Amino acid sequence: MEKEKVVVGIDIGGTNTVFGFVDREGKILAEGSIGTVHYEEPEVFVAALYEKIMVARAKTGKDVEILGYGIGAPMGNINKGTIEYPADLPWKGIIPIAEIFNRHTDLPVIVTNDANAAAVGEMIYGGARGMKNFVVITLGTGLGSGFVVDGKLVYGHDGFAGEIGHTSIRPGLSNRDCGCGRKGCLETYVSATGIKRTVLKILGDRLEPSELRKYSFDELDSKLIYEAARRGDAIALRAFEHTGAMLGFKLADVVAHTNPEAIFLFGGLALAKELIFEPAKKHMEENLLYIYRDKVKLLPSELSTQNAAVLGASSLVWAGRES
Amino acid sequence: MEKEKVVVGIDIGGTNTVFGFVDREGKILAEGSIGTVHYEEPEVFVAALYEKIMVARAKTGKDVEILGYGIGAPMGNINKGTIEYPADLPWKGIIPIAEIFNRHTDLPVIVTNDANAAAVGEMIYGGARGMKNFVVITLGTGLGSGFVVDGKLVYGHDGFAGEIGHTSIRPGLSNRDCGCGRKGCLETYVSATGIKRTVLKILGDRLEPSELRKYSFDELDSKLIYEAARRGDAIALRAFEHTGAMLGFKLADVVAHTNPEAIFLFGGLALAKELIFEPAKKHMEENLLYIYRDKVKLLPSELSTQNAAVLGASSLVWAGRES
Repeated sequence: MEKEKVVVGIDIGGTNTVFGFVDREGKILAEGSIGTVHYEEPEVFVAALYEKIMVARAKTGKDVEILGYGIGAPMGNINKGTIEYPADLPWKGIIPIAEIFNRHTDLPVIVTNDANAAAVGEMIYGGARGMKNFVVITLGTGLGSGFVVDGKLVYGHDGFAGEIGHTSIRPGLSNRDCGCGRKGCLETYVSATGIKRTVLKILGDRLEPSELRKYSFDELDSKLIYEAARRGDAIALRAFEHTGAMLGFKLADVVAHTNPEAIFLFGGLALAKELIFEPAKKHMEENLLYIYRDKVKLLPSELSTQNAAVLGASSLVWAGRES
Repeated sequence: MEKEKVVVGIDIGGTNTVFGFVDREGKILAEGSIGTVHYEEPEVFVAALYEKIMVARAKTGKDVEILGYGIGAPMGNINKGTIEYPADLPWKGIIPIAEIFNRHTDLPVIVTNDANAAAVGEMIYGGARGMKNFVVITLGTGLGSGFVVDGKLVYGHDGFAGEIGHTSIRPGLSNRDCGCGRKGCLETYVSATGIKRTVLKILGDRLEPSELRKYSFDELDSKLIYEAARRGDAIALRAFEHTGAMLGFKLADVVAHTNPEAIFLFGGLALAKELIFEPAKKHMEENLLYIYRDKVKLLPSELSTQNAAVLGASSLVWAGRES
């Protein structure tokens, strides 16, 4: 039987957790997922995830040797192996995720922020190959970001750099509650849940007919909004325009701070292509100092159909091994 | 006669340009300044500055050997030796400042952003010694910033990183013109000129008595506002509170992007101490995600009485020399 050495890359998201067996070249041999939302206890979640990984390994029909586990998660901290007070996960407080994982395995477990993992994935396997200064924005249930400066991921003093999802659009002026306890954070506007909240707001403000008027808050999701926008629904189009504008406003700050070569958008909302890219680019440029104008590329992740965070998380383990 | 090897550190500011003869240990042997605002042509400015430097050298009464010139300036670009479209200087377009300097001398001339120079000064000679991740904010005619990540100054892809003075407080909602051509940039609120504009706004809005009502726009300056605030003037105190709040809002973004250990405030407004630090700290903390709270130090520059940019600019030349 063929012997394959892999690292398990794991991307813990607010809704789903996906994993993949990644070889040294970044090839994903097998993938799987479980619903994060179904697990109120991180210990139960990890046990279920670990079992699923073992089943997936058996199903490959190959002799797969796992060398370690790389985990990307919101508020993942590489220094401590923890997830700390995640706003978008079902768990509270500080979760010692690496330690919980190590109850099942003695192999190395490395944890980092999911967006940091995506940035590393983009740098090694995606559109940022050869770039020294870039930023990856992950658009899922929430909004994450990973900054690369001079070829290295920025972790910052406490290991928590890159949380632009929790910067304020217009400090003191927004009433939109964020899961983090504050109001008006970027991710309350720019994320799968953010655009849904914006649709509700616009449905309340405007009298235009819209197919979205027939859905309850609970029924509505970003896919329905996307499909409505594709059919020319005025409310859905306004929601995308507003979402892109909010993103563009804050991307201008990103440019003014670290002057990247490119900003990559990754995840669900990024798949809406020009519906999100056009307003984001327009409002970013309008809010840029002239020295930056028309210089910073706004690009879709090249790992969209695979999984940047899975690849990035796995590469953290690969990077720590001798070749 | 004693022989002294020095680098000339030069800090080109919107109002004044200061220079100093800096030895390898960061000791400033002699200093001088000229008024930037009096020179409409950069060539005439450089000629006058160069003459002033030569006179200052003669006045030291020592055998001073100049090894090079380090220049910090708004929009200074280290890659190209230029100052590009400075909003706060009397000159327009792209000024090849290193090349103009080299009409007077064959010695090396290194140019960088004035706030980047201040950050390097703080790192080598000031309060950031031993820190790997910090930010310096310079408060003068405008507002500059220099980011240090993992012990290195962040230049970014085009050499223009660190322009938080030109990020928007509340995108699309401010009417305050910025010298850069946009509206509502941070430096239109948080700078010596910004606080003056805020005083005018508050004088128009409020009916409280104030000693500042007797000054014209042209007469008013940040020193008068500071002195009034010290005497308890209600309008001046409101202006400081508002200025600090605007700064705090945007410092929260800085923290969320690069998670520094400390943020240093340098320059005129920083000398107002708690009048600016208290509201800035309060509003920064209120706008921080919980993982960052009470972790990031907001500190006065330790180089306030000397000149961080002069030291930093000179250190760029020293760093390029063999010891």
